Amino acid sequence: MQKEKDVAIVGSGLVGSLLAIFLRKQGHKVTVFDRRPDVRKVQFSGRSINLAMSNRGWKALREAGVEEEIRGLALPLDKRAMHVEGQPVYFQKYGEEGEAIYSISRGVLNRKMIDLAENAGAKFKFEEKIWDVDMKEARLYTGESEKSVWKEYKFDLIFGADGAFSRVRHKMQRQSRFNYSQHFIDVGYKELTILANEDGSHRLDNSSFHIWPRGNFMLIAMPNLDGTFTCTLFMPFEGEVSFESIKTEQDADAFFENYFPDIKDEISNLKKDFFKNPTSAMVTIKCFPWSYYDKITLVGDSAHAIVPFYGQGMNAGFEDISVLNDKMNKYGDDWEQIFEEYQTERKPNADAIAELSYRNFVEMSSKTADPMFLLRKKIEKKFAQEHPELWTPLYSRVTFSDKAYADALKIGDYQRGIMDQVMEIPHIEEKWDSEEVEKEIIKLIKK
Amino acid sequence: MQKEKDVAIVGSGLVGSLLAIFLRKQGHKVTVFDRRPDVRKVQFSGRSINLAMSNRGWKALREAGVEEEIRGLALPLDKRAMHVEGQPVYFQKYGEEGEAIYSISRGVLNRKMIDLAENAGAKFKFEEKIWDVDMKEARLYTGESEKSVWKEYKFDLIFGADGAFSRVRHKMQRQSRFNYSQHFIDVGYKELTILANEDGSHRLDNSSFHIWPRGNFMLIAMPNLDGTFTCTLFMPFEGEVSFESIKTEQDADAFFENYFPDIKDEISNLKKDFFKNPTSAMVTIKCFPWSYYDKITLVGDSAHAIVPFYGQGMNAGFEDISVLNDKMNKYGDDWEQIFEEYQTERKPNADAIAELSYRNFVEMSSKTADPMFLLRKKIEKKFAQEHPELWTPLYSRVTFSDKAYADALKIGDYQRGIMDQVMEIPHIEEKWDSEEVEKEIIKLIKK
Repeated sequence: MQKEKDVAIVGSGLVGSLLAIFLRKQGHKVTVFDRRPDVRKVQFSGRSINLAMSNRGWKALREAGVEEEIRGLALPLDKRAMHVEGQPVYFQKYGEEGEAIYSISRGVLNRKMIDLAENAGAKFKFEEKIWDVDMKEARLYTGESEKSVWKEYKFDLIFGADGAFSRVRHKMQRQSRFNYSQHFIDVGYKELTILANEDGSHRLDNSSFHIWPRGNFMLIAMPNLDGTFTCTLFMPFEGEVSFESIKTEQDADAFFENYFPDIKDEISNLKKDFFKNPTSAMVTIKCFPWSYYDKITLVGDSAHAIVPFYGQGMNAGFEDISVLNDKMNKYGDDWEQIFEEYQTERKPNADAIAELSYRNFVEMSSKTADPMFLLRKKIEKKFAQEHPELWTPLYSRVTFSDKAYADALKIGDYQRGIMDQVMEIPHIEEKWDSEEVEKEIIKLIKK
Repeated sequence: MQKEKDVAIVGSGLVGSLLAIFLRKQGHKVTVFDRRPDVRKVQFSGRSINLAMSNRGWKALREAGVEEEIRGLALPLDKRAMHVEGQPVYFQKYGEEGEAIYSISRGVLNRKMIDLAENAGAKFKFEEKIWDVDMKEARLYTGESEKSVWKEYKFDLIFGADGAFSRVRHKMQRQSRFNYSQHFIDVGYKELTILANEDGSHRLDNSSFHIWPRGNFMLIAMPNLDGTFTCTLFMPFEGEVSFESIKTEQDADAFFENYFPDIKDEISNLKKDFFKNPTSAMVTIKCFPWSYYDKITLVGDSAHAIVPFYGQGMNAGFEDISVLNDKMNKYGDDWEQIFEEYQTERKPNADAIAELSYRNFVEMSSKTADPMFLLRKKIEKKFAQEHPELWTPLYSRVTFSDKAYADALKIGDYQRGIMDQVMEIPHIEEKWDSEEVEKEIIKLIKK
């Protein structure tokens, strides 16, 4: 246990709440600020992709001692259900027997995490917005507005868990030599819902992650405990088929009927959501340094917001906290060392999962219909099943392990190089499952 | 001439002042805001690299009708003077006969540009800081401090010419889908001075750009009209030989004596500056979009700050204004179209000169001592001299032409590919000036 510190966490989201639990266990006084109202007392806003908890997330929850409490809120998905145009649905297992990602509603999880942090003794201050941070003195300034009279708080440590548009990072960004980038993709997303059957059951298979890939746009659906599915439509903001191009009810009817005939019963509901819910943008944010001496550090999206196409945003944020906790155990009260080693270890991993997530966006939107790409995946999968000691697929390394993201990226690139060569084998379409190909892959690995 | 608009320019630097002249010529009412005092009434701050005006800069000044007024303030430099350790100084001509870059003091130029803009009828408001911008309504808010009572101004158009840390861009950055990056290099700079001889003459050749390349650091010197040289020491912030490592007068003595023996008479003066002047950071800033409908656009460093190693920062900013003026002439009062076409045309060029400037930093700091690199430059130069119709060196294309930076980058990459192959010719060191090599280059170009 460390010497007690008076700690502020800015942001009561998933990562902030988890950090609060860990810091309470380490014996600190914890105050969590959030500019928004208590999420437990408001309706959800209809703009959050359902979350996919995987190994890294569960590991951090386990270390915090709250894994079991969360398990009950999540539905395991062990496969993708691919709804390719003009073909029957087909299923792709994510990993080996027993491996699954877990669908969980952001709102449901966030409420629970705040409960757990409060039970652990953290104090929450909702609807109190941070306007300024005195980095040297670890002071926070809150108030009604930027120009109102501000209230001043003095802490020993401040954690910025305030998301992609972090106010704490905004202050750090004013320093010379602070590197920063925000890059938006030209695709937006909109949340839609597929209702439950009248008896409360799910309309689609509820242990699958459903995907309707449609070239440069796609729909996904993840099941909730109440029988509904949270769907997300990813589509370019502008262009021929785009959010901009769907202006009227007729446009929406035609769009859903044309591209998603297998859920056409749901069209009136989907259409309603389409015009009710906002279209949101997606951004990759990178920055460095994350820490300011022994006073301030950033965690989760405020340090490394990523696009959601690998389902790793929350998992990466939770892993930050797990790593921070390891450093606390290792360095005791030397907070400068804790923050320094935390950021040095996490930065390359955050960059790697940002890159992998962006690549998955490109892959999901443009390649899922390419037969040669699907063949490549099939060859890789078969080989991995037969030679698990030689080949762990990239997806498994990211999703079902807690090995460094940076290593996953590096090994993934190496594997891609091998597969590029395999795909060059003449008539690979015909002999992809032959012993010749298998031997060739082994030869390439051992080279 | 356009319909008169009430225009605000934020920033009275070089680009802001030039824009004021152009806008006055187009018949607009122009108010220039600057948070700093009038540069004509204060001492310079000792932290500006001397500027190198080249073709693009002169072209814009010519179009503004002020070229001749500025020519008198500048000294032509037609060559580099290389002060390589342990070798006599040697000279490298920049271009062909009559081609030169022009050394000019930022302060001297800025004072003159403000005079010229004022004479043209622009109104300047110094020491008035912008705190907020209402983008939709083109309003500016100024005041003593962020929390003081603000003064509101309403304009038709606002131009952000407020430099790398632009307040106008800062406001635009809050929009969704605004891409932005700031990347600092690990090298800092410090301004030093070499004094004039007692008779007012220059101590070093005054038609040369002087460089002392020293591996991962370097000193440069550019002459001023008064017989002095403005020197800039570029050096890593941290590390073995670094700004951080020079702490005492003894450290500084040893540093200058060790690395710059040919200017050792100047050491006490250089040392004095070393501890007096600040160490500054260098940043590449990219963003997009630059414009907000028909209301706001960014020009110069606020849109595209670059590292100074190609001597193109001011030239690129002046070229922005030249292009803007072309669009005003083309589209009359359609400001949305003017801003749209301006940003679409300039963005790839700004990215290209950012890339070229960064590459020059890498090249100047690490390659100027590599004999194979120097040989490559020699081969290229000889070929360009003998076949000017087949080969314009990249440096000339950037510095002595007004062709697009993006094309210079592209053609430069193509030429580099050819030179890579030339350098692979066996025994190239011995036969670099042979007809065989010349013919090989021609063959590679025609391929």
